[in-house]
Amino acid sequence: MGQIVIIGGNAAGLTAASRAKRIDPLLNVTVLEKGPHISYSTCGIPYYLAKMVSAADLVAYTPESFERERGIKVHNYTRVDEISPSRKRVMATRTDTGEHAEFSYERLLIATGVRSKLPGIPGTDFKNVFTIVDLQDALQLNEALQNSTRVAVIGAGYVGLEMVECLKTLGKTVHLYEREPHVLPGLDGDMAQIVEYELQRFGIRLSVSAKVLALVGSDDRVVGVKTASGLGIDPADVALLDTGVVPNVELAREAGVQIGLTGGISVNTYMETNVPSIFAAGNCAETFCAVRKRPVLHYIGTVAAKQGRVAGDNMAARRTKFHGALGTTVLKVFDLAVARTGLCSEDAAAESMPAVSARIEAWDRAAYYPTARKLWVKLIAERESRRLIGAQVAGYGDASKRIDVACAAITSGMRVEELVQLDLAYSPPYGNLWDPLLIAAQAVLRKMSL
Amino acid sequence: MGQIVIIGGNAAGLTAASRAKRIDPLLNVTVLEKGPHISYSTCGIPYYLAKMVSAADLVAYTPESFERERGIKVHNYTRVDEISPSRKRVMATRTDTGEHAEFSYERLLIATGVRSKLPGIPGTDFKNVFTIVDLQDALQLNEALQNSTRVAVIGAGYVGLEMVECLKTLGKTVHLYEREPHVLPGLDGDMAQIVEYELQRFGIRLSVSAKVLALVGSDDRVVGVKTASGLGIDPADVALLDTGVVPNVELAREAGVQIGLTGGISVNTYMETNVPSIFAAGNCAETFCAVRKRPVLHYIGTVAAKQGRVAGDNMAARRTKFHGALGTTVLKVFDLAVARTGLCSEDAAAESMPAVSARIEAWDRAAYYPTARKLWVKLIAERESRRLIGAQVAGYGDASKRIDVACAAITSGMRVEELVQLDLAYSPPYGNLWDPLLIAAQAVLRKMSL
Repeated sequence: MGQIVIIGGNAAGLTAASRAKRIDPLLNVTVLEKGPHISYSTCGIPYYLAKMVSAADLVAYTPESFERERGIKVHNYTRVDEISPSRKRVMATRTDTGEHAEFSYERLLIATGVRSKLPGIPGTDFKNVFTIVDLQDALQLNEALQNSTRVAVIGAGYVGLEMVECLKTLGKTVHLYEREPHVLPGLDGDMAQIVEYELQRFGIRLSVSAKVLALVGSDDRVVGVKTASGLGIDPADVALLDTGVVPNVELAREAGVQIGLTGGISVNTYMETNVPSIFAAGNCAETFCAVRKRPVLHYIGTVAAKQGRVAGDNMAARRTKFHGALGTTVLKVFDLAVARTGLCSEDAAAESMPAVSARIEAWDRAAYYPTARKLWVKLIAERESRRLIGAQVAGYGDASKRIDVACAAITSGMRVEELVQLDLAYSPPYGNLWDPLLIAAQAVLRKMSL
Repeated sequence: MGQIVIIGGNAAGLTAASRAKRIDPLLNVTVLEKGPHISYSTCGIPYYLAKMVSAADLVAYTPESFERERGIKVHNYTRVDEISPSRKRVMATRTDTGEHAEFSYERLLIATGVRSKLPGIPGTDFKNVFTIVDLQDALQLNEALQNSTRVAVIGAGYVGLEMVECLKTLGKTVHLYEREPHVLPGLDGDMAQIVEYELQRFGIRLSVSAKVLALVGSDDRVVGVKTASGLGIDPADVALLDTGVVPNVELAREAGVQIGLTGGISVNTYMETNVPSIFAAGNCAETFCAVRKRPVLHYIGTVAAKQGRVAGDNMAARRTKFHGALGTTVLKVFDLAVARTGLCSEDAAAESMPAVSARIEAWDRAAYYPTARKLWVKLIAERESRRLIGAQVAGYGDASKRIDVACAAITSGMRVEELVQLDLAYSPPYGNLWDPLLIAAQAVLRKMSL
């Protein structure tokens, strides 16, 4: 009976476990998770903190229910210390009891995820300074927020912005700091400014191009944020850091697994590493960018789950290829939806890829329809091939599914002159005779002088 | 200076006119429209009748404003009686004055649209019996509805169903008759039943497989509907017919223009007919189905507008190909959105195309998110090529843009194993870790035993 061991009990790990067991029910599948929880929605954490949903809602399975329903053994509180590829064994410590445990495998999946990258400034070790990577972080932050009114959020990435909305909903005073000249560094500046307008509309104090020098504390607790602007200390009862993450690759590296140039675990299209019988999937592993034609890192649950599914297929001996990912994301910032896929103009410039882009403003449905709202679409096409390589949408209406249409177009290598004729659905309550995506494609075509 | 004449002042005709003039501002472009109005949103008519928008809102341009802003001459009340290809002239009658008028052209576009196909039953000529093809119909129906409480709607196609919702909103008692075994014949029965449930939920009396024998009248006015069920006469103050349309091709045929097997005007990819210098576009013209690989007819404004744009390009001597259409549509039926693209299972069977389909039920966003609603997705793939050939979505949440993603996938010839990995956006307020489209694609793959 095949013995599969999986390190990591979230999107990639559990999807792989379920998939392998489903394909070959005779497999013996074991999941090792260092924390107490498995199978929770990291993306749902802001909605838990905002008291819209309960912590229990975020957890799809407990170790017990997962084992019962899927026939997969789950060991939580189990930290893997070492992988021995020659002995095909994994050495671990039970963090609750301190016991040592060993697991032998025929095939091993490394799905160790990421951890926060702390900024190199003083004060990040104060008690009321938080990062949000797992459910434990969220539960602790929830406690700390009970007696706090002023929250400093350092970093205006996805997590930072979702937390800003959540904190405002809770009635907190929020000050958001971003090192770059605009929020959401994965977006172009002309799209990010729509988000910044929304933040200001909801009373968020926003400092862009902000250099945070230190978190200032007293009695082990943060009391303020000191920035290079020199205008004194901004008071804060709690500080939240969204200053990036790094893949957890140490276990893999020590086992002789190759780490890619991106810093993630290097895998082939079958999610196999260079070490026989060891697979990797999820945010610790590289993924292939179909536009850049090289490995990249995406820290996104959807990509992790898809990699996990492919890894599960291959660990159960069904050969399946992972086709790569575009890094499609969508984010709710108050009333605004912001979404992106593929490359932004700044990405294309970084790749030295000559590109043409256009941004348009349009109604999300028939202008005369009472619920019509504004939407902004930016499309980026490669000049030479005329293929769509990126899209960004922000709007008060339906932005998230329009990015999905662009995602399908980019994935299939669609050229702008094909996109412009795409036979999209129209009815006044839902759309326009010419969908905003098509209007944006027309604008790109005009810039290509066609 | 080139002389372009366009017969028909709506989606296809005006788009072609605007496009040709934009590409070559020296062109002399004239539009001939038989009715009083141009440039109105036919799709918006139900919302006008429901008093959600004004009739003026539906009209984007008057003949005067179109002429002023675009530099294109519009003659309304101008019915074309004959086209003479040998003399390159068009003979017309001014319907308001009875005057004769002639126009010479270098290039001519036929965009004559469709007219209602009346069922072959007695009583369709009663005064309070209506079809809805143009704005004039709507204005007259609006009058008739003022003193009516019971409305019979014959035919449960798109217009019929939109009218049902509109009439219910106005407080009318509605009885809907459909000849086929289910509403929306373009949908499969298992999807149509979701729509039927919604109709019943809102108190619509629905008779499917209904054979209407006659509209029964008194003093030139309809008073009831007689069906083959033999259960007496259903009373009605107004009857609305949605029993199909036929393309207006008589002018074209008499000018020697070839009519296709579908009954629409035959065109090549440049929207040229067989007669030199005569183009056709819009609902009177055939379009190419990329799945069936043959000409088909679609009676949809979006397709008409796209054909018009391509015709305008080519009439202004910029060679552009029309890539065809899938017949993507979306419809609001009370709280439900219903959308389709490509072939349904019944279409595939009619084409003798071996296909695999699967229908799934899912949440439109994270199940724990307060606004999560149910959604049903059905996907159809060709068994041999494994390509997606059709999709249907119905749901209380976001259905219309999901059909657009399927539309992009079908257009690009995507196979199910590629679709299953599509990197769609996710955030709890907008979607799921596994989008319903991906879950449906997984279900299709399983049926293909992969």
